[in-house]
Order: sequence, then structure tokens, then C-alpha cells
Amino acid sequence: MPDSLIKNNEVGVFALGGLGEVGKNMYCVEYRDELIIVDSGLLFPDENLMGIDYVIPDYQYLIENQSKIRAVFISHGHEDHIGGIPFLSRLVRIPAIYASGLSYGLIRAKMEEHSGTPINLQEYHESDIIRFKYLSVSFFRTNHSIPDSFGIKISTPEGVIVHTGDFKFDFSPTSTDSNYAKMARIGEEGVLCLLSDSTNAELDGFSLSEKVVSENIRELFATISGRIIISTFASNVHRIQQIVEASVATNRKIAVFGRSMEKNIDVGMRLGYVKAPHGSFLYSRNTNYLKQKELTILCTGSQGEPLAALTRIANGTHRQISLIPGDTVILSSSPIPGNQESINKTVNMLYKNGATVITQSPFADVHSSGHGGQNELKLMLKLMKPKYFMPIHGEYRMQLMHARLAEETGVIKANIFIMENGDLLAVSKIGARIAGKVPVSDVYVDGSAIGEIGSQVIKDRRELAEDGLLSIILSLALERREVVCHPSIVSQGFLFMKDESQMIKELQSLALDVTDKYLAPGKKININVLKTDLSRTLSRYIQQKTDREPMIMPVIMIT
Amino acid sequence: MPDSLIKNNEVGVFALGGLGEVGKNMYCVEYRDELIIVDSGLLFPDENLMGIDYVIPDYQYLIENQSKIRAVFISHGHEDHIGGIPFLSRLVRIPAIYASGLSYGLIRAKMEEHSGTPINLQEYHESDIIRFKYLSVSFFRTNHSIPDSFGIKISTPEGVIVHTGDFKFDFSPTSTDSNYAKMARIGEEGVLCLLSDSTNAELDGFSLSEKVVSENIRELFATISGRIIISTFASNVHRIQQIVEASVATNRKIAVFGRSMEKNIDVGMRLGYVKAPHGSFLYSRNTNYLKQKELTILCTGSQGEPLAALTRIANGTHRQISLIPGDTVILSSSPIPGNQESINKTVNMLYKNGATVITQSPFADVHSSGHGGQNELKLMLKLMKPKYFMPIHGEYRMQLMHARLAEETGVIKANIFIMENGDLLAVSKIGARIAGKVPVSDVYVDGSAIGEIGSQVIKDRRELAEDGLLSIILSLALERREVVCHPSIVSQGFLFMKDESQMIKELQSLALDVTDKYLAPGKKININVLKTDLSRTLSRYIQQKTDREPMIMPVIMIT
Repeated sequence: MPDSLIKNNEVGVFALGGLGEVGKNMYCVEYRDELIIVDSGLLFPDENLMGIDYVIPDYQYLIENQSKIRAVFISHGHEDHIGGIPFLSRLVRIPAIYASGLSYGLIRAKMEEHSGTPINLQEYHESDIIRFKYLSVSFFRTNHSIPDSFGIKISTPEGVIVHTGDFKFDFSPTSTDSNYAKMARIGEEGVLCLLSDSTNAELDGFSLSEKVVSENIRELFATISGRIIISTFASNVHRIQQIVEASVATNRKIAVFGRSMEKNIDVGMRLGYVKAPHGSFLYSRNTNYLKQKELTILCTGSQGEPLAALTRIANGTHRQISLIPGDTVILSSSPIPGNQESINKTVNMLYKNGATVITQSPFADVHSSGHGGQNELKLMLKLMKPKYFMPIHGEYRMQLMHARLAEETGVIKANIFIMENGDLLAVSKIGARIAGKVPVSDVYVDGSAIGEIGSQVIKDRRELAEDGLLSIILSLALERREVVCHPSIVSQGFLFMKDESQMIKELQSLALDVTDKYLAPGKKININVLKTDLSRTLSRYIQQKTDREPMIMPVIMIT
Repeated sequence: MPDSLIKNNEVGVFALGGLGEVGKNMYCVEYRDELIIVDSGLLFPDENLMGIDYVIPDYQYLIENQSKIRAVFISHGHEDHIGGIPFLSRLVRIPAIYASGLSYGLIRAKMEEHSGTPINLQEYHESDIIRFKYLSVSFFRTNHSIPDSFGIKISTPEGVIVHTGDFKFDFSPTSTDSNYAKMARIGEEGVLCLLSDSTNAELDGFSLSEKVVSENIRELFATISGRIIISTFASNVHRIQQIVEASVATNRKIAVFGRSMEKNIDVGMRLGYVKAPHGSFLYSRNTNYLKQKELTILCTGSQGEPLAALTRIANGTHRQISLIPGDTVILSSSPIPGNQESINKTVNMLYKNGATVITQSPFADVHSSGHGGQNELKLMLKLMKPKYFMPIHGEYRMQLMHARLAEETGVIKANIFIMENGDLLAVSKIGARIAGKVPVSDVYVDGSAIGEIGSQVIKDRRELAEDGLLSIILSLALERREVVCHPSIVSQGFLFMKDESQMIKELQSLALDVTDKYLAPGKKININVLKTDLSRTLSRYIQQKTDREPMIMPVIMIT
């Protein structure tokens, strides 16, 4: 950070990702020559980003301030919090990454798959304190839709910065409980600035307890006499355990389909989050010897992902599982924004192929969000009693709503900072102010490349997707000033045109007319000008004839 | 229809569009040599159909049975019911199109824009009966989110077929009322088969009355002291009138932005659906001379459409309207499936630029759907008391739910037909059966072309969108059996590659290696085999180097 931006006694707090969006969370706390990072996530792009696999933050600031980085602390194991680690560790030297329990296990598994740069992965426990020269980091257990979720407390000489991680308050959790006492103690000792999860700031009241979800699933299982096919987020290990328990209670064996589901159950069993009597899981792909009412099929695909197990079951393209009369499909999940359409398609196909489908609704509470509603957010604010408040992890309207909730709980309006990625908050004992901006941008990961795809490539792909491409290829003998062979016209994703079609003939003759002007003796031939002229002329002709605008790609070969 | 499919005393009922989907509604009733069509709609494609403007049904069956077609009857003026008319009339000779009131006005305006084939457009009124040799058609007024919505009764020698059109029952409408008495009379006289709107079959209870929406909007307007920017569907002329009345009641002038909104208000005023005291509408683009509390801005963009007025206001790119502190934006609409993300983006930008945003929620009922919920669908079933029932206008799960509702009201399960587009129901006094299938498919309209874009082009566009394209161009002198000039490599939407890059050099040399094999003396050169070989070799190399699979387009020029 340029020295001019923050003063010696100020703590810099900023995000490289996670503000104004749900995804690629990465928050930084900087004091003098020490920089602590919380989380390193990625974002799954929407359909506008043609073919891009992931979006990660630009790590440029971290590269330039490499010497200051002390460690990355991981709040929990969701991809929007840990998915960036393989890329981060390839581009920036990170002294240590601290994670706990399931997050630790998932990161280790991830790094084995990537087989890239080794990282120094350390496991932390709730009672640990990790001390650096000025900063020290400790933890408090929270409740979320994945086990081992923690809030992170960063003590600085100017005061305490608290990052809640993703959380809800569940007064009857089916997993480990939130550490209310520790949160209250941190609040009593004084919190200078709180960064808190805004995802469900628009939702009234309290999230549904997992105990209710658990009971509902168990009751539902008891009423179903055929096979049960149930899908949930693979990382929701508590939910998986609820499904296991409901299956055991109704004498069902569990068959697991989908790679991420298998992987998470594996890690979950090793860590003791998934427990089942011996023989509860079927390891054979053959389920035919069981009666229908003795089988639970637990699978991926709750978001309608095209290649996931449930989608293939719905479409009749799954290799082992075909729908049979009496099947009940339960989606124990909620749609991630943008996935509603693909989920609808899956549900329609399931119905069409004879299944009964149960999705989360007020009449069948088979899912609860992992993020707290308005009263939970207020409870966090009441426990932490921060002087300054920064709503994080959410789109702008969620941040705005969270800011209003903070005001209602007593935070002074002037002390609330609704920030964007890169905004730098300078906070100290004597005040807080927006001190400037750290450079941020989106980096596209596509195939094995990080950042090589820029916005021009995306723009080209979008144009190609719209009307396809038409290429005109000319071979010129420069010395003789003539076109060597007949121009070729080829197209992809445009129209289906026969080689001998009228349109191709007219395009060829147009191209020759244009080129002839440039071949007039004595004139210098500027190839780029010729290309532009060809593009413009052909484009105009095609637009008139077809009302379409394919990308025109002229190629001039010189012999 | 092949004579074998239905017998002489049977009525054929089938859909070319509208079953298993919401869009491109087109239903056919055929008896002997007479064919009646109800509606001719289009479907707005989702993002999977790269660059396609509209989807319409394949009219092949109608072309082949042109002589049987007596007329098209339009139930109401939404695009999924009238949008196909310009294409239908270009491809099929239609003796007459009957529409009423606003539908009539909108179709006339549409045909003027298209300036294509003239159509014989006739206006019908509720009391009319249009008689053909065997069939006769009459109408009953319903209530929907656009004025002049009608159900259509088709009397056949075998009994009455009723098509409800899109409808809800509003017991306190702000517009003309449903004709309960006529519906009851039709039911009393006997309905052989009912085709009814399934859109909201999953929604419990009754839709909200427009009277409540109207009162809510008026009360809301009274509480707002700044400018009001309000958006709704341009075709929802009743809602527009409610907004006009609320503005007049609170002494606001109305400025209209957005072409479709202007057009619909224009048609609505001519037909008397939009009424306002002289001077209520501002015809100047300059609104600056008004106080903030004196202005309502009524605009398009409730679905977050990229070029609509509200979207541009939100993004700060609108030429006349910039957001100012105190602005309140009201979305008096609901998200059409698939649009939630773009609406979210608009709402975030509005908040970010300082506006207060009010969307439909249980706390602010500023919108009501145009489609009836479960109790309304049951009421229609109770009034019509059909012997046979076909749930139409909806995705499969909506049709399925509607079938269950019909069963609950007393329709025998075996008499309910959940059909797909093309399924042919043969119905008569003595029974009903699925008699076969009429050919159906989706036809893509892209630019000015109907049906020239097939699924291969869409597949190509999708592939281009994913990883772009790389072209290798080789010029061969066949007689001399040599490559004339150095191969060219060009790409679009792939990677940014410098002309002199290592990868381009390696691709060129790979291409020469492949080609050399084919140029060996004495061998016959098969250009297509060479192309396939080039594609395969280059593709493999690129996949290894970049983990990407651009489309490879080899071009061989012969000199």
C-alpha cells in the first residue's frame, strides 16, 4: 500500500473479493509491515462469461506486498472461501495457510488434485492464538452449512478486528454449537471493527433450525414406501448425516452417486462428521437385490448441473440408476441464484419420468439456509458491539440492508462503511476513514491459464456466440499484383451455406472488387487497410441480405 | 393428419406449441376437413439458444393441411399468443385471423411494422358466433393481465371444446369483469373437453385482487415525497391505468420512457383503457421544471432488459434521466423465470446510485400475477364441468399439478390427458384416446431468417462461445505437390497470441508435418482427410498446452 494512504497508527482493512458479490472472498488486514489474509475463494461465473471456468481476484497487490504477508486464515471450507488457494499459491509466496477440521481436509485433498506448488498448510483449533509481531489471530466457533466454520478475531495495537465468516445461529443445531460465550467475551473486551456476513440480510426473522429440518426429513422418509432419491450440497456434511440417520431409522441402505458427494462423505467419515452403523453404505453399484423401500440414493445434482448424477437420472442417461414407478426425489437444497432454470428442467424431467418430487417449500421444510436472517445478524451485532461496522459477503442491496440492521442495533450511522472491493478503510483508536483504493479486478481462469483471457476475448466469444463467424481468405501475389486463386469463404455458426450458393458467389465477387482497387499498379498495398475494407464491405452486404452480423475474419496470404 | 389417425366422428385436438413450456402457444381443433387454430405465439429463447431471436412452432403440419384451415382465433394480445402471426402468415395461407379489442390493435400495429404479407384481420366481440360448415366458434370474457382476454368455445358435432386462454378470477377487478354467467351456461350445456391455463397450478389459493394492488400503489405514492420511477410490463394496460390514477391523485405528472411502453399507452388510450385528465402526460423530455414530488416516471425495464429505460437509468447511461437523492423506484412486476439475475443487477445499481427500491413482496403488494392460482383453476373446472380435461400452457410439473386439481374437482382420472406438443387427442361422444402424433419441432428465427438456423449452427455457436476458434490456412499447389506459402494461423475468442509467438510457430510446423505426408509423390490427395488430420493434430497439441478446446477450422486453398 503506498505509504501515503494509511498512517503509521492506522490499520488497513480491505477486500480483494467478496464485496458487492457472493463469491471469491478475500479480506485483508494490514498494519505496518504485517498483512493477514482471511479466505481465498473463487467465483463460479454466470453465463455472460463465455466458457470461463472460474473468476478469482487479481493478486497484484499481494504480489507487490509479498514481504508483508504473514498467513492466510480460512474461515470454512466452501469453494468461495478456499477455491482460490491453488491459484494464489502458484502466484504469491504464502508463508502459511491456517485451516481447521473439514476445511483443512478439503484443502489438503484439493492440493493433492492440483499437484502444483506445495503449500505450508497448518491446522488451527478454536483455542489457538497465532501471534505475529503486531498482529495476533484467534478463533470462535460459528454455525454454518458446513462443519468447522469459524469467526476470526485479529487483534491489532489499535483494537480488535472481527471477521464473522459465514454464519447463522441455530439454537438447536444438529452439529457443534456456536460459541456464544466466546463471542460475548470478545464483544465485552471491545471490538473496533466488525466484518459480518450479509447474504441473508434481506430475510426477515430467523433461519429454520437444522433440528426441524432433520425431523422433517426423518418423518418424510417414514411416509415413503418406494425408493428415495435425495440430493443436497455435497459440502453440507451435517445434512448428509441427517439423511444417513433418517435412512438408518427407516431401514434403508444408502447408495452414493456423484464424485464430490463421495469425496465429501469420505472426508466427513474420517473426521467423524458422518457416522453410520457398519453396512449402511452400499459399495456396490448394484442396488437391484434390495426392495424399493430399503434404498436411499444420495446424489449430487441439486442445482441441475448438466453432468451431475441427479440430472442424468432425470434424463434417463445415468448408467446405473433408472427411474421406476414409486420413486420419490427430494431436493434438500435451495437454488443458487442463476440455477433456477436448470433446476426447473430437472424437476420437469423427473415428474415426466414418473417420480414424485419434493422441493423445499413452506409445506415441506427439507432445507435451511446456512446464512443467518435479520435477527441472527442483529444478535451477532449485539454480541460484538462493534464501534465500526463493515457489511461483507453480499451484493450491494444485501450490504445496504445489513447496514440498516446495524443502525437499528445501535451502531452510529457514520461508523458504518458499505464498501466495494479495493476500498481501503483506515481504522484506529481515534477514528476511521476511507483512505483510498487498492487496485482490484477480476481474473479469469480458463483451462490451465490464469489471467490470459482478458475482456476482449470474452467480447469476441460473445460476438461469435451471437451470429457466428465468416472468414474470407485471399491469396495475393504481391509482386505480380494479382489474386492467386479464387477467394475462399468459410463460416462457422453463421448460416448453413452450400459452397456453390448464390451468397458465396456474391461475397467472393465483392471481395475481388474490393481487392482489385488495392492492386492497381503503382499504389502501395496496406494489408490492414485492405482487411478493414473487406470486413466493412462484406459485413454490410450480409447485414442487408440476412439481418445478421457475424464476425468477419479476413485472412490475406502473401505468396 | 393421416386419415388413419382419427376416425370420421372424432375431433382431433393438439398443440403445435404451448405444452410442456410457457410460450409459443398454438392449439388446433380439427374435425373432418375443418381446422381451427387458437393463438399463434412465439417463445423468447433462453441463453442456451445462442443469438436466436425467437422460437416458433414448425408450421409444417399447417402447410400440408392448408386447405382445411378456416381461421386463427386470438385469445389475448401477449406475445406468446400473437407473436408468431407475422411468420405464420408468411408461410401459411390463413383465410382469417380473429382478434378482439386490444389484441386486434396490437396485431394491426405489429403487421404495420413487419410490412410483410397482408393478413385478413377481423375483429370479434363477445356476443359473436363465427360459423363454419361443422365447427362454430364463440367467446367468453375472462380476466388477465392484459385487457380483452377471452376464452374460446369451439362447438363441434361431437360436443364443445373450450380453450380458456390465460386467465385469473378477480372478484374486484379494476377492469372489465369475467363473464361468470356465460361460463356457467357453457358448463351447463355441456363441455366435452376443457383446455385450461396451468401457469400457476402450483400456487396455493387465489391471486391477489388488482383492487388491492391498485390501493397499495395509491397509498405508496402518497407516502413518497421525491420522484417516483415505476416500471411494469408494457402490455399490462390496467396496471398502467392504476399508476396513472395514483399519479393524478397525488398531483404528479407522468413522463413515459421506453418504446413499447409508449406504444401500448398509445393503443390503450385509443381504446379507452388508459384515461387521464388532459395534461397528465408530459410530452416534453424535459422534466426539470417540475418539483420532485410532482413527477412519476413510467418506464420499461422491469425484467432488467439490458437496453430498457430503467436499466439505463440504473446504470447512469440514460440520456434524459439521472438518479437524484430521494428517488424511489417501484418494480410493479414479477420476474419472468430466467430474468432474476438481470433484475438483481439493476436493483443493485439502483441502490448503489442512491435510490430506494420497492419490489413485490408480502410487505408491499405492488403486483399480482395474471394467472389464477389453484382455487381459481378449480373454479373454472367447476363452472365448465368438462368430461375430458387437458391442462395446457405450462411446464410439465404445472400440467401435472393442474391434472391433480381437476381430479379433486371430480374429473375422472382416466379422462385427463397430460400431453406434449404434437400429441393428438381424438375425442368424440363415445370416448377419448391419444390417437398418435402430429410432427412438431422448434423453429429458430434469427435476423430475417425463419428456420435456416438448425441445431448444428446452435451447437457451433455454443462451441465458439466456449473456447473460441483457431483457423489454419494452407495454400497448396497440387500439381507441384507443395505448400505455396507459409501456413497462416488466425484465432478469435481463443487466446491472445502474438504473430511471432512460440505456439503459432509450433502449430505452423505441426501443420506442415501433417501436410507433407499427403504431398508424397504418387499419392492421391484427399482434401477432407487432410483437413480432419489437421484438426485432430492441432486440437491435441492445443489441449495439451492450454487445457482448452477451441474449434479448429482448417482451410485449404488450391492454386
